[in-house]
Amino acid sequence: MIVIMNINASQASIDRVQLEIEKLSYTSHLVEGKTRTVIGVLGTKPLRGKQHLQTLPEVSDVLEISTPYKLASREWQPIDTIVGIGSARIGGNHVTVIAGPCSIESYEQTKIVAEAVKAAGGHLLRGGAFKPRTSPYSFQGLGVEGLKIIQQVGKEVGLPTVVEVTDTEVLTITAEHTDMLQIGTRNMQNFTLLKEAARTNLPILLKRGMSATVKETILAAEYILNEGNNQVVLCERGIRTFVDHTRNTLDVSAIPAFQRLSHLPVIVDPSHAAGKRHKVIPLSLAGVAAGAQGVMVEVHPNPEVALSDGPQQLLPEDFKDLVDRIRMVAKAVGKDLA
Amino acid sequence: MIVIMNINASQASIDRVQLEIEKLSYTSHLVEGKTRTVIGVLGTKPLRGKQHLQTLPEVSDVLEISTPYKLASREWQPIDTIVGIGSARIGGNHVTVIAGPCSIESYEQTKIVAEAVKAAGGHLLRGGAFKPRTSPYSFQGLGVEGLKIIQQVGKEVGLPTVVEVTDTEVLTITAEHTDMLQIGTRNMQNFTLLKEAARTNLPILLKRGMSATVKETILAAEYILNEGNNQVVLCERGIRTFVDHTRNTLDVSAIPAFQRLSHLPVIVDPSHAAGKRHKVIPLSLAGVAAGAQGVMVEVHPNPEVALSDGPQQLLPEDFKDLVDRIRMVAKAVGKDLA
Amino acid sequence: MIVIMNINASQASIDRVQLEIEKLSYTSHLVEGKTRTVIGVLGTKPLRGKQHLQTLPEVSDVLEISTPYKLASREWQPIDTIVGIGSARIGGNHVTVIAGPCSIESYEQTKIVAEAVKAAGGHLLRGGAFKPRTSPYSFQGLGVEGLKIIQQVGKEVGLPTVVEVTDTEVLTITAEHTDMLQIGTRNMQNFTLLKEAARTNLPILLKRGMSATVKETILAAEYILNEGNNQVVLCERGIRTFVDHTRNTLDVSAIPAFQRLSHLPVIVDPSHAAGKRHKVIPLSLAGVAAGAQGVMVEVHPNPEVALSDGPQQLLPEDFKDLVDRIRMVAKAVGKDLA
Amino acid sequence: MIVIMNINASQASIDRVQLEIEKLSYTSHLVEGKTRTVIGVLGTKPLRGKQHLQTLPEVSDVLEISTPYKLASREWQPIDTIVGIGSARIGGNHVTVIAGPCSIESYEQTKIVAEAVKAAGGHLLRGGAFKPRTSPYSFQGLGVEGLKIIQQVGKEVGLPTVVEVTDTEVLTITAEHTDMLQIGTRNMQNFTLLKEAARTNLPILLKRGMSATVKETILAAEYILNEGNNQVVLCERGIRTFVDHTRNTLDVSAIPAFQRLSHLPVIVDPSHAAGKRHKVIPLSLAGVAAGAQGVMVEVHPNPEVALSDGPQQLLPEDFKDLVDRIRMVAKAVGKDLA
Repeated sequence: MIVIMNINASQASIDRVQLEIEKLSYTSHLVEGKTRTVIGVLGTKPLRGKQHLQTLPEVSDVLEISTPYKLASREWQPIDTIVGIGSARIGGNHVTVIAGPCSIESYEQTKIVAEAVKAAGGHLLRGGAFKPRTSPYSFQGLGVEGLKIIQQVGKEVGLPTVVEVTDTEVLTITAEHTDMLQIGTRNMQNFTLLKEAARTNLPILLKRGMSATVKETILAAEYILNEGNNQVVLCERGIRTFVDHTRNTLDVSAIPAFQRLSHLPVIVDPSHAAGKRHKVIPLSLAGVAAGAQGVMVEVHPNPEVALSDGPQQLLPEDFKDLVDRIRMVAKAVGKDLA
Repeated sequence: MIVIMNINASQASIDRVQLEIEKLSYTSHLVEGKTRTVIGVLGTKPLRGKQHLQTLPEVSDVLEISTPYKLASREWQPIDTIVGIGSARIGGNHVTVIAGPCSIESYEQTKIVAEAVKAAGGHLLRGGAFKPRTSPYSFQGLGVEGLKIIQQVGKEVGLPTVVEVTDTEVLTITAEHTDMLQIGTRNMQNFTLLKEAARTNLPILLKRGMSATVKETILAAEYILNEGNNQVVLCERGIRTFVDHTRNTLDVSAIPAFQRLSHLPVIVDPSHAAGKRHKVIPLSLAGVAAGAQGVMVEVHPNPEVALSDGPQQLLPEDFKDLVDRIRMVAKAVGKDLA
Repeated sequence: MIVIMNINASQASIDRVQLEIEKLSYTSHLVEGKTRTVIGVLGTKPLRGKQHLQTLPEVSDVLEISTPYKLASREWQPIDTIVGIGSARIGGNHVTVIAGPCSIESYEQTKIVAEAVKAAGGHLLRGGAFKPRTSPYSFQGLGVEGLKIIQQVGKEVGLPTVVEVTDTEVLTITAEHTDMLQIGTRNMQNFTLLKEAARTNLPILLKRGMSATVKETILAAEYILNEGNNQVVLCERGIRTFVDHTRNTLDVSAIPAFQRLSHLPVIVDPSHAAGKRHKVIPLSLAGVAAGAQGVMVEVHPNPEVALSDGPQQLLPEDFKDLVDRIRMVAKAVGKDLA
Repeated sequence: MIVIMNINASQASIDRVQLEIEKLSYTSHLVEGKTRTVIGVLGTKPLRGKQHLQTLPEVSDVLEISTPYKLASREWQPIDTIVGIGSARIGGNHVTVIAGPCSIESYEQTKIVAEAVKAAGGHLLRGGAFKPRTSPYSFQGLGVEGLKIIQQVGKEVGLPTVVEVTDTEVLTITAEHTDMLQIGTRNMQNFTLLKEAARTNLPILLKRGMSATVKETILAAEYILNEGNNQVVLCERGIRTFVDHTRNTLDVSAIPAFQRLSHLPVIVDPSHAAGKRHKVIPLSLAGVAAGAQGVMVEVHPNPEVALSDGPQQLLPEDFKDLVDRIRMVAKAVGKDLA
């Protein structure tokens, strides 16, 4: 921590800050500039000091200079984490493709999609059983029946599965039926869910909150790592901005930012940022070009009758084309398809 | 719903849209402009139609013209809802003041604050027992002990209490110890929590999500009303913007927007938008001036040693001054202190 | 400036940073923490150093600790600036009311509005002669004819005038016909215009850019002060956010932020943030409650036939009511009507 | 336009709206739903009607269904515009590379960079002579001397040039020394500059405003096209969001959005969205992957001594690597290097 005094702050105020720093069991260190004094705060992890110091007289600002997360940081672990999900791997110089229907609607629908995903070279099957919906009057998912369908189809087709867990009440049942848990954008700071999901020891796909900073997202991952589970994949899925041509703005610049600060793999989910199908492919490729180690997209055999988010789901043939293009873009950035 | 065709769309595409509208059991109605045809979709509540129609050839856009919420709407109930919490009331032409510490830290701290709140004319006592914290290493609240403290202090001082419920696991215990449940900004779209909290039949203070639109916030309230609990108070607490001089931007324009669309009372919580104490009073008064039916602020006997959010908590004497100013501003907008 | 090294940065990298600091003619000062070294940079105004230092090996970040503006800062001038415009004053513990039509449409329209403004206790007459419009097909203002009308009406009614200057080409002619120049939100960083407008020595009403930070706005004012003209009034008029219930989000928290950092007066213009008439009054009062030293609103004798922004313009009788309410809110915050 | 009445609006209000529509010389067309009536407004281009209709009793909303721009729209011209700048072309299925120093600092610096750009396969040389700077104390560019340098170097090396024109005062001199004019993000709605720049008949590179919507950007282009100059290239350069890990958020989703609505070519300038060099390459490639028809980047022979924006400028060898990767990504999306 660094305490920045006002310009020409009085000696009394400087002495007071130093005294308070010592009371907090830190060591203080004066840096006297021409017009302004800055006081370094040396010692162990600061917890309560910052707020206290900010309220002292003639203090202009108090800056934290250490990162608030530790286990998730690149400084803690310089080497990329590779997350294993059954036969699939996410991380390093590989691009992993995750695909499936937005909502699991039936065994048939899921099977058709899963076979198309497998045939095109996809690595994991995704699908929603419990759907968080903005309106109480929208389709809320098949629930446990959906879990059973995706588990069975995943086994039949040979693809590990990813399913969103929407709250702690359905955590146990969801964990029993899938290979990887997804924590959605609205739950990124549902700290109880983060901790309990971590304890299942399943790998976790953590979506960035729609208004979360990069730092807050890494802190949410830290909740999981702090429980002893380091199998976490971060997912950029678009943020809330003033923009009205899409529902969310895919923040591709977050991908290199995450990778610089953390060793965790980063994938991109363009569905909600695209909104419409004709944008899903460009945004998926943009994510890979920006360095994403995976892409997650929605595929539906017949998007126009989909029970949720139809317009943004790809047809199986679009998906095949997407995988081919991902392979080429991955190569351009020194990666290969996982 | 209204389907807007592309300019000079072909007759075949127009026919197709009309056919699909009929398949969905709606009636279609053509409006032929000079260069563009628009098709009205008449009938009962549309659920799946919009997405389907958007994917048809030469369809430019599909607009919803009915509001997606019903029970929370001003059209459904033109008269203001007044929410009762023990001796207190929120709504109508009154301004209710809710105050207390950010976190309950001890019986003594809570008692001092509660007496100051009561003496200054405050109406409800707030306090956090379970604290959702961005970092796993921050103070997480006293838990059940905190619940017991605030319940006891509330009774001793004669103030009904408001406590945040952070997840479904602590819902029952929290509901047993408070008069009103608060749903925090990170939980505004935790739909399971909304539904289960509603079923306690306690009045609910619902905070706007930090990146939620007015419409999404009213839809979250609709989840509660849809369970048969209409004792909901909406709370504007600041949104995420590009601004860096505060943590959140208090959106005072949301207050008249909520009141126009919904019959539910709206209060303002400026603490997170203020960030620093010297802004809490101006922003509280701005909220009342914009029409808020209540103000919620944080008060601490000794903010510089507070375990959370110290710099934004008011001193008891500041709080007294705030209540006096609220009374004057309320009068300027045709309201009185509740 | 402070250079923050990576955790466990090598001695070689630290030496290198110190060497470069000396090359830039600064003095360096080491602060060695447990895991991280921080290097203070002491000396005169840094200009090119920051960027250079950021590119050195093992440098985590470089923080500026001095404010980038000087003349506009509260540290430079602790006492509030009071700006004089003919008989009117803006600043200090007073609330000044500026009103008039969005666009000057005719002598009659302007005269009716000006008389209503004067009668209700308004202090300055505003009106647009050159209108910056998003679409080339919208009404662009009466131009010089409009300038002449507002100048004449201002004299007849006894109100000093404020007119927006849209570019350097119309600066001279506009300056000849008004008492105060307005720089609009789209021109806040039109640096040539800022400098040339400053040189007219007229007082300047500088609107915050719709996506400008508080710091950038003060820096724009610094351009004017740097030309020797210190008669600048800052104006909060709403910012771009994700919000869709208004065109812009009035950032009332910017008002105390500006006042803390700068000695310049701050007013609020809620028209573009309100969008609709029923929000103009609440937002105006919210601005005053938050500490604004003035309010600027649009008044039209017949808003439904206004050539621009009709729905957000007040009727003369609404304006009278607004001034009365402003008087009451001003009193609640320790101010009076100017 | 479509007028949406309140639920259960009275017949009198509906009649009033129809009467007003006729007064505006439009034809009205009723669509009566179960609970709500909608009124189509048929006729020629609406100008003042929308605002008027919005103020009528029991009108819920008035929606525009036609696009506000015409000449720039894909409906007006379905085929892609190809913009020619000397030997270079931008548009269609090609990716054009524009590069050069942020600021022109000297003949030597510009020549070194230009030769590197040419050698690596770049198509146009960019460089700033007049620099719009947030602070009046920052380097403001070499001015006319800079114009002469880039013109001479462009000729010597055989690259057409792009130079930003910052205001109308330097328009004539700038236009005499460059092959393409750039309008910067802060000037996107400087309508006088747009019109006067258009009249030079030079091709124009129009940067999206940092808080402009896609629609507003196309409207700004419409100002240029409306003067008879259709040689306009749109440029996505990042928008203002809550994000704090970069200065601006590159909105790659805007690229397909622009291309769907307009026939004008779209390029991407990642410099300001990247902020740091290690992000420039990923974001450039993300732009091309999303469909951009060009990339503009900053190159400096020695970024650590650059007079402006050093950390985001590429070294010549990085640039060579970037062009090679662009070629591969372009191929993946069905394009080739121009």
